[in-house]
Amino acid sequence: MSILVMKFGGTSVANVDRIARAAKRVAVEVAKGHDVIVIVSAMAGETNKLVGFVQDTSPLYDAREYDAVTSSGENVTAGLMALRLQEMDIPARSWQGWQVPVMTTSAHGSARIEAIPTDNILRKFREGMKVAVVAGFQGISPEGRVTTLGRGGSDTTAVAFAAAFDAVRCDIYTDVDGVYTTDPRICEKARKLDRIAFEEMLELASLGAKVLQTRSVELAMRYKVKLRVLSSFEEQTDEAGTLVCDEEDIMESNAVAGVAYSRDEAKMTLTSVPDRPGIAAAIFGPLAEAGVNVDMIVQNISEHGRTDMTFSCPNDQVLRAEKALGEAKARGDIGFEELVTDQGVAKVSVVGIGMRSHAGVAAQMFKALAAENVNIKVITTSEIKISVLIDRKYMELAVQALHDAFGLEKAA
Amino acid sequence: MSILVMKFGGTSVANVDRIARAAKRVAVEVAKGHDVIVIVSAMAGETNKLVGFVQDTSPLYDAREYDAVTSSGENVTAGLMALRLQEMDIPARSWQGWQVPVMTTSAHGSARIEAIPTDNILRKFREGMKVAVVAGFQGISPEGRVTTLGRGGSDTTAVAFAAAFDAVRCDIYTDVDGVYTTDPRICEKARKLDRIAFEEMLELASLGAKVLQTRSVELAMRYKVKLRVLSSFEEQTDEAGTLVCDEEDIMESNAVAGVAYSRDEAKMTLTSVPDRPGIAAAIFGPLAEAGVNVDMIVQNISEHGRTDMTFSCPNDQVLRAEKALGEAKARGDIGFEELVTDQGVAKVSVVGIGMRSHAGVAAQMFKALAAENVNIKVITTSEIKISVLIDRKYMELAVQALHDAFGLEKAA
Repeated sequence: MSILVMKFGGTSVANVDRIARAAKRVAVEVAKGHDVIVIVSAMAGETNKLVGFVQDTSPLYDAREYDAVTSSGENVTAGLMALRLQEMDIPARSWQGWQVPVMTTSAHGSARIEAIPTDNILRKFREGMKVAVVAGFQGISPEGRVTTLGRGGSDTTAVAFAAAFDAVRCDIYTDVDGVYTTDPRICEKARKLDRIAFEEMLELASLGAKVLQTRSVELAMRYKVKLRVLSSFEEQTDEAGTLVCDEEDIMESNAVAGVAYSRDEAKMTLTSVPDRPGIAAAIFGPLAEAGVNVDMIVQNISEHGRTDMTFSCPNDQVLRAEKALGEAKARGDIGFEELVTDQGVAKVSVVGIGMRSHAGVAAQMFKALAAENVNIKVITTSEIKISVLIDRKYMELAVQALHDAFGLEKAA
Repeated sequence: MSILVMKFGGTSVANVDRIARAAKRVAVEVAKGHDVIVIVSAMAGETNKLVGFVQDTSPLYDAREYDAVTSSGENVTAGLMALRLQEMDIPARSWQGWQVPVMTTSAHGSARIEAIPTDNILRKFREGMKVAVVAGFQGISPEGRVTTLGRGGSDTTAVAFAAAFDAVRCDIYTDVDGVYTTDPRICEKARKLDRIAFEEMLELASLGAKVLQTRSVELAMRYKVKLRVLSSFEEQTDEAGTLVCDEEDIMESNAVAGVAYSRDEAKMTLTSVPDRPGIAAAIFGPLAEAGVNVDMIVQNISEHGRTDMTFSCPNDQVLRAEKALGEAKARGDIGFEELVTDQGVAKVSVVGIGMRSHAGVAAQMFKALAAENVNIKVITTSEIKISVLIDRKYMELAVQALHDAFGLEKAA
């Protein structure tokens, strides 16, 4: 028995016609001899509508009830997909999260999958069922309440099922035909990648590429799930889309696999901070407590025992950050002269496992930006990623320049 | 601990504002010291939308998937109602059918409730919860699949909970302010009844009055649940609406409590049927198998060993009836000369437990119709009901004439 997991996102099941089209894709895989587990999202827009109801009803909502409400859209598409498959004479049935059961933590709104018992679905496969349709995004807590996995959580459901059932592959059907070297809306030379390494996909996902939920990539990497991203709107072959896979499965690669960007960043600088041990903890502790996601951090060289401390965070967390730092100053926990906020910045990053073996990627990046007169405000690096903070108005220019500089329009 | 069950129908929870209004009604009852079980329908229109999706996807749908899809609307309103109550500082949580669990038969699409374990919800009440919000219309089969109770099934959920928890009363909030002597849209003299006997309500519900699901009234009668129908759109007192109760709780009553009608009836006559034992079974057996709901049946006096057989059924079942009878004739199971179908008829009924003690109700009814020159085509009677089939064009006239003839505009 070879099990294939296929996941269809919200635009791929947006209405009855699209569900029929997705069912045809499933039928192709069934005809190849696979037993198929289909994971479905809610119809596009449905979850947003439900979230709106919750927020209108109770601004500070009980996350358990939020989950009970927002998980309902997936039940609809799961049932409809099973019906459509039956209509094509393919034995199929739907499962809601609690029926599998998809056992999760109690962290409502962003629960983690802890276990997926396989016996129930495997028995049905043995009895002749060809497709198990499972409502994505949802699970059940140890207390028996409905949980959800966070936005984009159906990707994680799909990968978790692929891992639990030891699937040959996990195909993520979406409205794009794969993972690109960068966003084609910004750079027309953007090229679809045939393969990308888990590590690269993970960086790209967390840097703002919206193709896959970050957690689903982590999970795929840990359990070695072959993950494929492809379009539900095109005829597909076994080679279509982008395969997210182990580094070893990629023959040759460019130094840089892709360019990512994040538009809504803010840069905040605390000037003239006393340069003493523990000052970083004194600043970033209160920020963490206030729920500010600090991203890049730079500390200037100290002069006369004082220094400047700069960090970036999402634009919509600036008010929260200012409040937390103001209160810390009032309490006397930290001393600084000024808090300078710049809400007109963007982050541009290059990502690639090839960086480990190719020297000079950073230098090449800075040179390309300098050639376009783009001023770099903050730099951070990791083993396979270099990010810079720049003025937002140069963002598209920077993405295009870097795409050219690293020759991403051509395969390695 | 005194438990009150309150049920809110689709128009009463049609949007976030109406849910807030319904929650205020619940708060009033909580303030009186009740522990409250709230049963909610889906937002008005939502279930129809889901049924449409199912029919578009699979005309001959698997009822198990139909149930999985159509039950989802109630989960949304249950969660939102719980959130709204929490927002008003009333401890509340939602239950989906499988969480209670509402245990039903496996008759998907029209399942019957078999048991409602109370320990789970009672424990929460003891722990300080004030309101349990339960998704109506749904349950769980012995196989662990989601079931639904048929259209209007949330009424039945409400009565079943009232019976299981020995509730002081079951209040059904809807878009009308009670049960009327007849449909106010047809007869402007229609009067709201303060009380009506279970038996009368049962007849009215099965004769076409859409206020309550028939099954919910049966259940209330069997378990002596005090059932009240009232409007969610008006300020309410303990005496508002209509109380559906035991005959003994009604002091005095008119001979006739109400006039019901059903517009979409058809009359079918088989002419010159051989009058032999077993002929009725030979005719109505195939009709039952074909799913035709035969209502009234009249057999003419026999002449020369042959007779005419007339029956009525819903208009949209005529084709099915014609097919079943044609096939039975072709098989030689029944012999008849002609099958005459009249799709232009309506049924008008008068209902009242007072008929048992008031003589001459039938005569009075026929006289009133004769005075308006309304020709009666078929008559059936029961202990507390008289129904006639008439030309549809006289239906409204007949309802008004009967309402006048039995003086229904005035209380007894």
